[in-house]
Amino acid sequence: MGDFIVELAANAHPVHVAAGALDRLGELARAAGLKPARAALVTDSNVAPLYGDRAARALRAAGFDPAIVVVAAGEASKSLATLATVYDRLADAGLDRSSAIFALGGGVVGDLAGFAAATWMRGIAVAQIPTTLVAQVDSALGGKTGINHPSAKNLIGAFHQPRLVVADVATLATLPEREFREGLAEAIKYGAIMDAPMVAALEAAMPAILRREPATLAEIVERSLRHKAFVVQSDEREGGLRKILNFGHTIGHALEASAGYGSLLHGEAVAIGMGAATALSRACANLPAPDATRLLGLIEAAGLATRLPAGWRGAEFDRALKLDKKRAGAGVEFVLIDRLGHAFTRELGFDEIIAALA
Amino acid sequence: MGDFIVELAANAHPVHVAAGALDRLGELARAAGLKPARAALVTDSNVAPLYGDRAARALRAAGFDPAIVVVAAGEASKSLATLATVYDRLADAGLDRSSAIFALGGGVVGDLAGFAAATWMRGIAVAQIPTTLVAQVDSALGGKTGINHPSAKNLIGAFHQPRLVVADVATLATLPEREFREGLAEAIKYGAIMDAPMVAALEAAMPAILRREPATLAEIVERSLRHKAFVVQSDEREGGLRKILNFGHTIGHALEASAGYGSLLHGEAVAIGMGAATALSRACANLPAPDATRLLGLIEAAGLATRLPAGWRGAEFDRALKLDKKRAGAGVEFVLIDRLGHAFTRELGFDEIIAALA
Repeated sequence: MGDFIVELAANAHPVHVAAGALDRLGELARAAGLKPARAALVTDSNVAPLYGDRAARALRAAGFDPAIVVVAAGEASKSLATLATVYDRLADAGLDRSSAIFALGGGVVGDLAGFAAATWMRGIAVAQIPTTLVAQVDSALGGKTGINHPSAKNLIGAFHQPRLVVADVATLATLPEREFREGLAEAIKYGAIMDAPMVAALEAAMPAILRREPATLAEIVERSLRHKAFVVQSDEREGGLRKILNFGHTIGHALEASAGYGSLLHGEAVAIGMGAATALSRACANLPAPDATRLLGLIEAAGLATRLPAGWRGAEFDRALKLDKKRAGAGVEFVLIDRLGHAFTRELGFDEIIAALA
Repeated sequence: MGDFIVELAANAHPVHVAAGALDRLGELARAAGLKPARAALVTDSNVAPLYGDRAARALRAAGFDPAIVVVAAGEASKSLATLATVYDRLADAGLDRSSAIFALGGGVVGDLAGFAAATWMRGIAVAQIPTTLVAQVDSALGGKTGINHPSAKNLIGAFHQPRLVVADVATLATLPEREFREGLAEAIKYGAIMDAPMVAALEAAMPAILRREPATLAEIVERSLRHKAFVVQSDEREGGLRKILNFGHTIGHALEASAGYGSLLHGEAVAIGMGAATALSRACANLPAPDATRLLGLIEAAGLATRLPAGWRGAEFDRALKLDKKRAGAGVEFVLIDRLGHAFTRELGFDEIIAALA
């Protein structure tokens, strides 16, 4: 229970969701076919003191020899400068083509360490061990890796599927409240775009979720990851269906960039982006008013805003929006929903999008 | 004549070998399916004044809008620092997912611009337009891209197939003599590992080659690229057959690294590496003495050394060899030939390899 396979031909890999899975990391890695050898455990300055030793111990017990690489916590580490220090550490550690990188942390660590793995010796194995809710319900699975460029988020990156995903929901106990709540945005997204009953389940379970009851969290994480796996399996490289995962993200990314990375958390920006996408779905896709009301209510029940924060910087936002990777001429391919649980993309003009935020 | 397709399923792409092809670059790019849009023409400070304008003009004539990005000529540009400046220029130029990067130059430009394309927005189109003999007979085809790390060459990189390769042999007229001759090492390699008649053809044609007769050069370039395409088609990611392309390269790479990048040219290092691999093939693979003599004679007829240069730094060489990407424990998977035109790999100990160089 809580284990499944992401079916991706040559890139198929297992996913484990369970409280306490961290202590089985080494055996799970071996079962996934990773060679016990010189390895790197990449983590950040918040996660290292909490879970670094346990992860390293679990790896050593299974015969891995991990060099521990700790980067500064925070979005600023998704930079070329931090990547350069990671490469230096990989070289010092003598990683070779049979080595694996274990990415222990949130989305920043997963994206950064995943990109390092994608580009070290033209690609070595990476295992994703997400410790934040955003990463557990979403970013650890799917193979997107990368870093930010000063001009836009995730501008530099690669597709590189993990060989293994291990989501230990017990690690969520130590997550600061704000980071916990932002993660709920991504779970709600899966309900909104492809699973109407999940919206109802989230509505009913929200009190238990906010108390962080492990069994409830495991259910939500697994349900989210199974949805993501389904989408990624149909469309590994984001040519079609996978685009619906960007619900709330086009605006969310531009908000993050224009607010200055880090002042809005990713999930907070996505929640606002989903708010705007709900308004656009009402205007352009006949989303019924009761569906819109429920979705906005669920986001707010998770403690997330659905509207722009005070001090929103319009000009910077517009510029960031227009640098979106999915832009096409004077518009962008935008994800809308026409009912809870059903999403599709449509090209919308930048002006329409900006108007919806007002 | 001179055109063929590299058959790589989703990554299939055309190759054009002809004197004067540079002036048809734009139409060839459109024929290959590249969208006439904002683009980047990445080249270096040697090539830009010679061929930059012609390439840009050919692109504009076909509707492309190339931003010109010029990096310093030389191996030192295969660095994270130069890559960062390329990324900055791509952001300034507003490249999006439908944009292409045109890599005009030798192996350094091809590897650097190819890696930028591999990692910009998780991968955009790249066209390789090699202007050196090394790049025309070898590195422009195959999808290997990357940069160097201070500890070893090509340690950071990705597989990213070009959408188009255009080798204009007329551009070889301006190549400095030493860089021209180093390119012959890679052509000779194809004869040595998979085409014994090509060894004879190179022996016969060497005077015309050294006079740089365009028709002869076009034949040699096309024959080499067809061999490389055959190997890459069988083994895109270097799991098996493709490894034979590393004939002379295991030692060559370590020599380049230990001599300090740039003091030995790549092809010069490969020539010495082939010399040592020939000795090892005599010792370990029963390579007949006449075959060894012919191969060494051909390398020398191209004006290349088959033995270590004076001042060879043994300790640095050993260290670099042991960081080889193909290492396995106390040895490395090494390419040997048991006759002209037939190569295979075998694990050899570092000690054996080092002894063969003495």
